[in-house]
Amino acid sequence: MTVRAAIHTETVEYKQGDTTLEGFVAYDDAIQGKRPGILVVHQWLGLTDYEKHRAEMLAQLGYVAFCADIYGKDVRPKNTTEAGPLAGKYKKDRPLLRARVNAGLDALRQQPLVDGKNIVAIGYCFGGTTVLELARSGADVAGVVSFHGGLDAPDPTDGKNIKCKVLICHGADDPFSSPQDIAALENEMRQGHVDWQLIKYGGAVHSFTQPMAGNDNSKGAAYNEKADKRSWEAMKQFFAEIFK
Amino acid sequence: MTVRAAIHTETVEYKQGDTTLEGFVAYDDAIQGKRPGILVVHQWLGLTDYEKHRAEMLAQLGYVAFCADIYGKDVRPKNTTEAGPLAGKYKKDRPLLRARVNAGLDALRQQPLVDGKNIVAIGYCFGGTTVLELARSGADVAGVVSFHGGLDAPDPTDGKNIKCKVLICHGADDPFSSPQDIAALENEMRQGHVDWQLIKYGGAVHSFTQPMAGNDNSKGAAYNEKADKRSWEAMKQFFAEIFK
Repeated sequence: MTVRAAIHTETVEYKQGDTTLEGFVAYDDAIQGKRPGILVVHQWLGLTDYEKHRAEMLAQLGYVAFCADIYGKDVRPKNTTEAGPLAGKYKKDRPLLRARVNAGLDALRQQPLVDGKNIVAIGYCFGGTTVLELARSGADVAGVVSFHGGLDAPDPTDGKNIKCKVLICHGADDPFSSPQDIAALENEMRQGHVDWQLIKYGGAVHSFTQPMAGNDNSKGAAYNEKADKRSWEAMKQFFAEIFK
Repeated sequence: MTVRAAIHTETVEYKQGDTTLEGFVAYDDAIQGKRPGILVVHQWLGLTDYEKHRAEMLAQLGYVAFCADIYGKDVRPKNTTEAGPLAGKYKKDRPLLRARVNAGLDALRQQPLVDGKNIVAIGYCFGGTTVLELARSGADVAGVVSFHGGLDAPDPTDGKNIKCKVLICHGADDPFSSPQDIAALENEMRQGHVDWQLIKYGGAVHSFTQPMAGNDNSKGAAYNEKADKRSWEAMKQFFAEIFK
């Protein structure tokens, strides 16, 4: 007998300080009981249908998935021209970025079906940078996964605060992270004795999991079906190791 | 009902030119019909029980596994002092190394249970270097996997000859491949438009899949259980993608 997945979704308002944020939760109604929770952090355009679709895919795998909102309710850039300065604001203000992503983590924890000891955060582009900041904040999560995140090491001594496993899925031809920045990040994790892994996908540039990025690598951001599928499988393997 | 695996193993003599080589084959007698073949290339000590055990593990996964012998029948270094110059001889003579590994590939193909269209080569340390040379030789294999192989790019234009998928599993703290050598290898593959992936395992040094290497990272070569298991899973995922 095949059990048909019944994915429940809803928007969830929550707060960081005085700021109202609007997240999104997805889980399978057909399964009983508590289960691991996955925090999903959006790319620079904010929380879009893309992340919601990923949350539904995660719900189909049996998890409670919660899309965080870093920017705030109704703050949804219309295009990359609007997105750039907004993402830049949070990238420059790492304490605020950490506060926002930790608020999302708290909101995920408050979901009644979440097993609070089994939480992993994943993020795309800006969200990849953000989940690394979540790890550096010392958050009590079991792991973080960055998909084509902007990679750097603003404070090289931060690695020592990371308590969780780290998986970085990166396009080998991504022009937005320099080899020097990646080397600095590796050194941060090395010196922090972090349990980390970095996968480089040949032929992939920035945004390789995102069909809306198109297929022109020369733009520096493009979808790459192979790297998309491989990184999703690597994530599932990472989950399988953690959620034994 | 559980079917108990019945792993058949035997040594296999074969030739490269006038040189007699002694390989080792393993497959599950309890399964019927042709199946993918995995070529296994040894580390610098030559074909040992370590590779034979890996071949048995691959046989249990349902493949025909064939351990190549690069050095020649009865040429089995007793220790690393003897192994160094021998491995060095082949690393300096890449045409000979290619001839030897291709002879192993031919011997695998002659195994009656092998589906010749579905062959992947894997190699450890010296064998990792060797399977990259197999790929560069233009061999008709579907993929190669290097586990803590010595990474370099002796001829940066060689990538264009590679027809197969390449997966490189590397210890992020492996002292035997310089960042410059790894960057050169990445560029070789990039310029050759190869379908390649590189996984770096944090905290792992050379020999991370080999329990006989001990546990002292400061020696530059040591076993790392996490990286061993993760790279084996990555290999299985690589196989799953290829052997659809």
